[in-house]
Amino acid sequence: MLSGSSPGEILMERLDALARCSEPGPGITRRPFTPEHRAANDIIAGWMHEAGLEVSLDAAGTLIGRRDGPAGCKTFLMGSHQDSIRQGGRYDGMLGIALPILVLERLQRAQLGFAVEVLAFADEEGVRFPTALLGPRALAGTLDPAILELIDADGIVLAEALAEFGGSPEDLVSARRDPAGVLGYLEIHIEQGPVLEQAGLPVGIVTGICGIERWTVRLTGKAAHAGTTPMDLRRDAFAGAAESALAIEARCRDTEGLVGVVGSLGIEPNVVNAIPGACSFSVELRAADDTVRAEASDHLTAAIEEIADRRGLETHVSKTYAQKGVPCDAALSARLTHCVAGAGIEPLALMSGATHDASAMADLCPVAMLFTRCRDGLSHHPDEAVQAVDLTVAARIVECFLESLGADLA
Amino acid sequence: MLSGSSPGEILMERLDALARCSEPGPGITRRPFTPEHRAANDIIAGWMHEAGLEVSLDAAGTLIGRRDGPAGCKTFLMGSHQDSIRQGGRYDGMLGIALPILVLERLQRAQLGFAVEVLAFADEEGVRFPTALLGPRALAGTLDPAILELIDADGIVLAEALAEFGGSPEDLVSARRDPAGVLGYLEIHIEQGPVLEQAGLPVGIVTGICGIERWTVRLTGKAAHAGTTPMDLRRDAFAGAAESALAIEARCRDTEGLVGVVGSLGIEPNVVNAIPGACSFSVELRAADDTVRAEASDHLTAAIEEIADRRGLETHVSKTYAQKGVPCDAALSARLTHCVAGAGIEPLALMSGATHDASAMADLCPVAMLFTRCRDGLSHHPDEAVQAVDLTVAARIVECFLESLGADLA
Repeated sequence: MLSGSSPGEILMERLDALARCSEPGPGITRRPFTPEHRAANDIIAGWMHEAGLEVSLDAAGTLIGRRDGPAGCKTFLMGSHQDSIRQGGRYDGMLGIALPILVLERLQRAQLGFAVEVLAFADEEGVRFPTALLGPRALAGTLDPAILELIDADGIVLAEALAEFGGSPEDLVSARRDPAGVLGYLEIHIEQGPVLEQAGLPVGIVTGICGIERWTVRLTGKAAHAGTTPMDLRRDAFAGAAESALAIEARCRDTEGLVGVVGSLGIEPNVVNAIPGACSFSVELRAADDTVRAEASDHLTAAIEEIADRRGLETHVSKTYAQKGVPCDAALSARLTHCVAGAGIEPLALMSGATHDASAMADLCPVAMLFTRCRDGLSHHPDEAVQAVDLTVAARIVECFLESLGADLA
Repeated sequence: MLSGSSPGEILMERLDALARCSEPGPGITRRPFTPEHRAANDIIAGWMHEAGLEVSLDAAGTLIGRRDGPAGCKTFLMGSHQDSIRQGGRYDGMLGIALPILVLERLQRAQLGFAVEVLAFADEEGVRFPTALLGPRALAGTLDPAILELIDADGIVLAEALAEFGGSPEDLVSARRDPAGVLGYLEIHIEQGPVLEQAGLPVGIVTGICGIERWTVRLTGKAAHAGTTPMDLRRDAFAGAAESALAIEARCRDTEGLVGVVGSLGIEPNVVNAIPGACSFSVELRAADDTVRAEASDHLTAAIEEIADRRGLETHVSKTYAQKGVPCDAALSARLTHCVAGAGIEPLALMSGATHDASAMADLCPVAMLFTRCRDGLSHHPDEAVQAVDLTVAARIVECFLESLGADLA
């Protein structure tokens, strides 16, 4: 560690170093089981060694830095993903690996009373192979072995890429952890949204990772001449879609912890002087609390039916995707909140609208997440940016969290 | 005339005969100044002769059947267009030519006290050359000579096609009429909309031909991740468009004689999990009364600005098209109304949402229009259909109209 540098300044330098492990082009492109992944792991392993961690690679290709605790103790896990989307940013994922390593370096002489591991997962973004969360699913024992047969754009099979990288596709079960031996999992991640910046806060405590559902709605009315058809004889499919979209927006605005959007829409025949005869649109709803989402889903499908009936439209609603929400653990989150408040910062609780490794880790153990502020709420973009001062705050909160956990276990 | 046949039955047969003057394919395709046009004109000229009319072709290619009146009398005009869209129907246009010829055949022995002409205009649809209303504009003296240079899809120049057909492109001024010598113009046309069918009426009196304006509206907000951006921090361009579309619909529903539609819309980036960052859509407003349309236009542009301001969106509204409305003549329409009521039919007044030859004839003289019911409000389609019984009613009303006009002039 450079003398005189703050944790945040050190982390900025370290994340810049990892950013150089990228395919050419704007931003960061680092797919799993590639030379860029290997180069990044070599750097991370170096920092793990400096922090006194024992370094290994598990069967699913997760780089692990472990510090043992007293005999028979349980293990607390921290980490995130090393991979990026194509032309992404340098903080998404990597912050959650680099930060806990630095914290453990600073806590080398502290007696925590438990073992601790930092996990650098290979694949969260799902950009190379049409799957994701390989590492945490292997730990939790929820990995479907069929995904080993998936191929990337170059025809390379996942199992081969993993084996060549040093993993053990034939022995994934060896990566599995016994839940009884795991205290929990903490993930530090940039917010990827504008809430903390708007609130003027460096960090926030995540209440849960949202569940998601997506529908395709098709409304069918009757295309007709826009000049010769009186208003009261129209069956305008787009007008029905517009009313539906505003009903969705109103429900989400009025419901704490629910967001939703009509992001995609198409009109037929889509010409200036024809009444739209059909309109298809997407609906996406997200909530950390599955009950909130289910109630909104029921309310809104009924609302769309009512709108369509009143307008003489036929409806076809197909639910195309659903993913359950993952609530963060109350006790771990309360500990984070205590440390945030202790740092003199208002403890803001916020939902995670995006999926994280913690989603899959929740099948193994209690999970918690700390979000850090990012500029303009921007992520998955070369211009993704954070401030060193926020990372210093986050590092001190994680330090507090581990010490507090140790004190309670003592 | 077949003995025992009603006027409607005769007209159905005559319109079937004209329908055979078509390019191959479904429905009717009859472009101006083609062999199909010539074949149709030959048939029409035959009926004109049977009705005792003197047949000629004017400089703009309009086939004219004329019956003189007393020395120094004025002339009343009737007619419509012979041409069709590609794969159109057999009643659009041709009904307004065949019907008055049949009426004049039945009135051969009547002393009307004025001259009368039936006009078969060459081009109202504008399908062959990118212009339309050549015939009525020549009569009114509003034809722009520059259109003579227009070319069709085969590279044929309009002036050449017209000259070869028998017109006189170099002497279009010869077609011009002196307004002082013209009593008015009556056009019979299928409604091309559902109003009469819904009302259960065979005919209706047109109050005016609507003016039209079209805008393109672009709303710009901010594209963002649909999971990580809270509802209150969104600048959703599509939500603004949806609210605008409903405001347009509400204004048109609440305003007598105004119709409007958002017929075309596009979202960017148009994906299920992104907040729409931009949305472009078309707006079309139609009203026979230009004041009604102008007030709605002012109200709605202000409403869109208010919606956009409230939602943090930028607006760009460009008006792409405008065409003034043409009110029908009150005296001629009152005479039509008198004849409709006299036939025991409720006199329904309705706006024409589409453009007709009467729009251009209004620059020459007072105009009136009688609409006849069409099945399912369908037009510009091979399945366009009318009932013989409705045409009989229409023929009797036109007969009444001419006799009533003659009686008043006597």
